[in-house]
Amino acid sequence: MIRACIFDVFGTLVDWRTGIAEAAAPVFARHGIAHDPFDFADRWRAEYQPGMEAVRSGGRGYVRLEVLHRENLDRALIGAGIDLPVMERDGLNEGWTRLPPWPDVVEGLRAVRAKMLAAPCSNGSIALMARLARFGGLQWDAITGAEIARNYKPMAEVYHASAAALGFAPGEVMMVATHNDDLAAARAAGLRTGYFPRPLEYGPARGRDLEPAQDWDIVAEDLPGLAAQLPG
Amino acid sequence: MIRACIFDVFGTLVDWRTGIAEAAAPVFARHGIAHDPFDFADRWRAEYQPGMEAVRSGGRGYVRLEVLHRENLDRALIGAGIDLPVMERDGLNEGWTRLPPWPDVVEGLRAVRAKMLAAPCSNGSIALMARLARFGGLQWDAITGAEIARNYKPMAEVYHASAAALGFAPGEVMMVATHNDDLAAARAAGLRTGYFPRPLEYGPARGRDLEPAQDWDIVAEDLPGLAAQLPG
Repeated sequence: MIRACIFDVFGTLVDWRTGIAEAAAPVFARHGIAHDPFDFADRWRAEYQPGMEAVRSGGRGYVRLEVLHRENLDRALIGAGIDLPVMERDGLNEGWTRLPPWPDVVEGLRAVRAKMLAAPCSNGSIALMARLARFGGLQWDAITGAEIARNYKPMAEVYHASAAALGFAPGEVMMVATHNDDLAAARAAGLRTGYFPRPLEYGPARGRDLEPAQDWDIVAEDLPGLAAQLPG
Repeated sequence: MIRACIFDVFGTLVDWRTGIAEAAAPVFARHGIAHDPFDFADRWRAEYQPGMEAVRSGGRGYVRLEVLHRENLDRALIGAGIDLPVMERDGLNEGWTRLPPWPDVVEGLRAVRAKMLAAPCSNGSIALMARLARFGGLQWDAITGAEIARNYKPMAEVYHASAAALGFAPGEVMMVATHNDDLAAARAAGLRTGYFPRPLEYGPARGRDLEPAQDWDIVAEDLPGLAAQLPG
């Protein structure tokens, strides 16, 4: 019996690539920088997994994702050959609080919550999730994920801590994500799994995770389709 | 500048005494127990502070309030000379997830959230807060409080961890409570403070905290009155 759904956020619920490109475009324009803001969004996001690896490996204590995002930004700018004043960098880092939800998400999340508890299980912090929810009109029962566990997905403890924070055993909770690796880790941690594709996450020409890589418990076209398949 | 409000829940937002009495009454009726369910609610609640003290003193690691409530229930039943089967006790413990909000709370919380972020800062767990919110029709931006800090109010770390989880400094966050001791601890931890009375919390004949004990930053008649005084 599934009692709650927990959700990946970046990519699954919100369009980080468009949101970050839209945050960067006016900053670049102000500073006469011709760099494609979508390419810049891709470069910044490419630093995401390496940035978390120091925490996952135990070499660094938990720091919130805002801190990693800010460090990753400096690296992405160097890689792109762009210089920006510190205050512009700090402002740009706030772009992660203003990422547009995919068009089906507000309706789909409401449909899920009509059946059971729902919470983000993101690598983003509680503060970041609260701001993203406000920006996108999302409504959660609680905020679970990395900050609760003080570690980053796909470490098993993040899934376990998130289920426990909602008062459920791992097998009573479904991890919902468009990323097969996130679902594989959740399944290995004992959770149920739900998948739908987000073919535009990485831009029109570079689809990933377009198909389910395993027989996930629910496979749907989008979030409302997943909600319709949930029990209750 | 106040950027977020965090709230005491038991007493300030929900009427635990009525909720617990209403949970106990049918159980007592089933077992032919003549004990006044309101007196029983008072007895159970009287075990609340002693139950948390082992955690606060460091003698016991953090356990969620559900665990303490269940232990306290056994003690309260002994004190009242009542015996109940374990399954009835377990069911009664769920009564803490179904406590009615005071009549002004849904409207008042909406008014606060129209101005800023709002989260519970309760000694209740994330799971308990999520269920209480569902039961009472409350809507939060996040759930802060004891579980985030893995300790219990009035330890300063609970207020600090709650502000930090929302992404703010202590001085940017207002603790809202009807209990003067909660507010005194929050003020000592550097938070702003908001008070209104709940004269019926302990029943009609036994008012406590009927007046502000210090010059709290906001003193109001009820939650909508407090919301009206918030900046924004």
